[in-house]
Amino acid sequence: MKKIDELIEAIDRTGAPIALGLDTRIEYLPDELARRANDPDSASASILTFNTKILKACRDVVPSIKIQIACYELLGISGMRCLIDTINAAKSMGYIVIVDAKRGDIGSTAAAYSAAYLNQNAPFQADFLTVNPYFGIDGVAPFIDDCRKTGRGIFVLVKTSNPSSGEFQDVKTEDGRALFEIVGEKVSSWGDDASLIGEHGYSSVGAVVGATYPSQGTSLRKAMPKTFFLVPGYGAQGATADDLAGCFDESGGGAVVNASRSIICAYKKHGGGFDTAARDEAERMRDDIARAIEKKRKEK
Amino acid sequence: MKKIDELIEAIDRTGAPIALGLDTRIEYLPDELARRANDPDSASASILTFNTKILKACRDVVPSIKIQIACYELLGISGMRCLIDTINAAKSMGYIVIVDAKRGDIGSTAAAYSAAYLNQNAPFQADFLTVNPYFGIDGVAPFIDDCRKTGRGIFVLVKTSNPSSGEFQDVKTEDGRALFEIVGEKVSSWGDDASLIGEHGYSSVGAVVGATYPSQGTSLRKAMPKTFFLVPGYGAQGATADDLAGCFDESGGGAVVNASRSIICAYKKHGGGFDTAARDEAERMRDDIARAIEKKRKEK
Repeated sequence: MKKIDELIEAIDRTGAPIALGLDTRIEYLPDELARRANDPDSASASILTFNTKILKACRDVVPSIKIQIACYELLGISGMRCLIDTINAAKSMGYIVIVDAKRGDIGSTAAAYSAAYLNQNAPFQADFLTVNPYFGIDGVAPFIDDCRKTGRGIFVLVKTSNPSSGEFQDVKTEDGRALFEIVGEKVSSWGDDASLIGEHGYSSVGAVVGATYPSQGTSLRKAMPKTFFLVPGYGAQGATADDLAGCFDESGGGAVVNASRSIICAYKKHGGGFDTAARDEAERMRDDIARAIEKKRKEK
Repeated sequence: MKKIDELIEAIDRTGAPIALGLDTRIEYLPDELARRANDPDSASASILTFNTKILKACRDVVPSIKIQIACYELLGISGMRCLIDTINAAKSMGYIVIVDAKRGDIGSTAAAYSAAYLNQNAPFQADFLTVNPYFGIDGVAPFIDDCRKTGRGIFVLVKTSNPSSGEFQDVKTEDGRALFEIVGEKVSSWGDDASLIGEHGYSSVGAVVGATYPSQGTSLRKAMPKTFFLVPGYGAQGATADDLAGCFDESGGGAVVNASRSIICAYKKHGGGFDTAARDEAERMRDDIARAIEKKRKEK
């Protein structure tokens, strides 16, 4: 079974199109765990404890997690071990795991990255990996080849959620379209292949589309009907559920929304244990997104 | 002292504008080392032995190395340890170390990557890091901030060396320029700051410009007079010294050329020990580049 179908079915089951972001930093930890985080080894141990408790608390509410690999690389070897342990813990609890690494390089190097994350025997076992498109198809094809072989998937950056994403992505090209629209068209065509399309009509080659740019999300949704979207930017980055409702298809599917700080640091705002606060926030986010999708449907 | 000045002076001292690429794969190893590489731990040990011998053989010929991090990530934890050990070995022998990771993300994540590679206390101690520009300035600024603090540097992708690099990089924009020219202009302006420009007139914010696109290299050299170029594509990727001569400035400076397979696998073509064959090939490459720069100068 393709991972894109597993993801879609897990979202249907939970009613939550959410990728819980375990972009865990030491400063996010509650005092009792932060106090022990004095060096990379103990920081990694504290982060693993934090991650595992959140994973346990959210397992029947949230279908997938997104792990920002930078947060683990900055702790060196012990951080990378914590990454593997977090992936294994999440998989053993039934989560779909998106590794947010945004890798991209020339073909031979992209093949090495794919061997690190998407191969059957990869040391870092991602179900999905985020990929940067700047190199063109050479730098993406090796990942797509592995998606075909293993049923895993990728999300290629199209329109990112950060304030300066327009600096290059919105550059107007000679045919009047913005660059991100051209990237979107290519990503859509790369994934439009019977060997990549799952039972629910979506491809193993997905796209990253930031929630912070609502009109672009809506137009990309129409232009890329077989492309599943990973939508960052909700919560701490400032986007609301109404901003991202346009990233969903007519049936309320086709996208998974990432939130990290707003969930894993919810305890700082609302009090209570960090794990139960994360679960409460995930439930609130689920209902908020459902409300926004329903509202958009009625407006039509 | 800024690393960009150290790099320039080391190139002057050796006469070799070369970044030796330690993009070491198991299939590159000679039989006696490959035979022992049966699992990630022993593969990493064999690669470290291979890297160390090449570093020792080339130390008075080559000023800098470029490490493709994908080749180490694919070996998981032991690969990342091998990366650290290779960096430490190279630094102890006086090499300038370019970590080729092509990282890029939203601001807070870019800051985490910078903490992993460019901070004073980073677990992976890069003198220079390669960076992807797709996110615009938000995704590059945290690296530049660390360059200011530590004197280290980055090379931002402008025009990459792979066959499909034009798919997005050459897209014509509404003002008639290709996207890579706009990226080049921005990279140039990001680095054009007194706190980043070294004693030799080049900035700590450099650019990646592929040797495989000679006319683009020549035009970027003119458009980016304070931007030092990291030039991949020589050798195994097909570019000749004449192809990349235009990436150098009037004085024959301003660029460092990367070659990986053609140096570290030279023994497969020319015989002999892999370390001495690598040294011989680096010397041949140095002379080949000097000849091409001299030829270009005479043509003017």
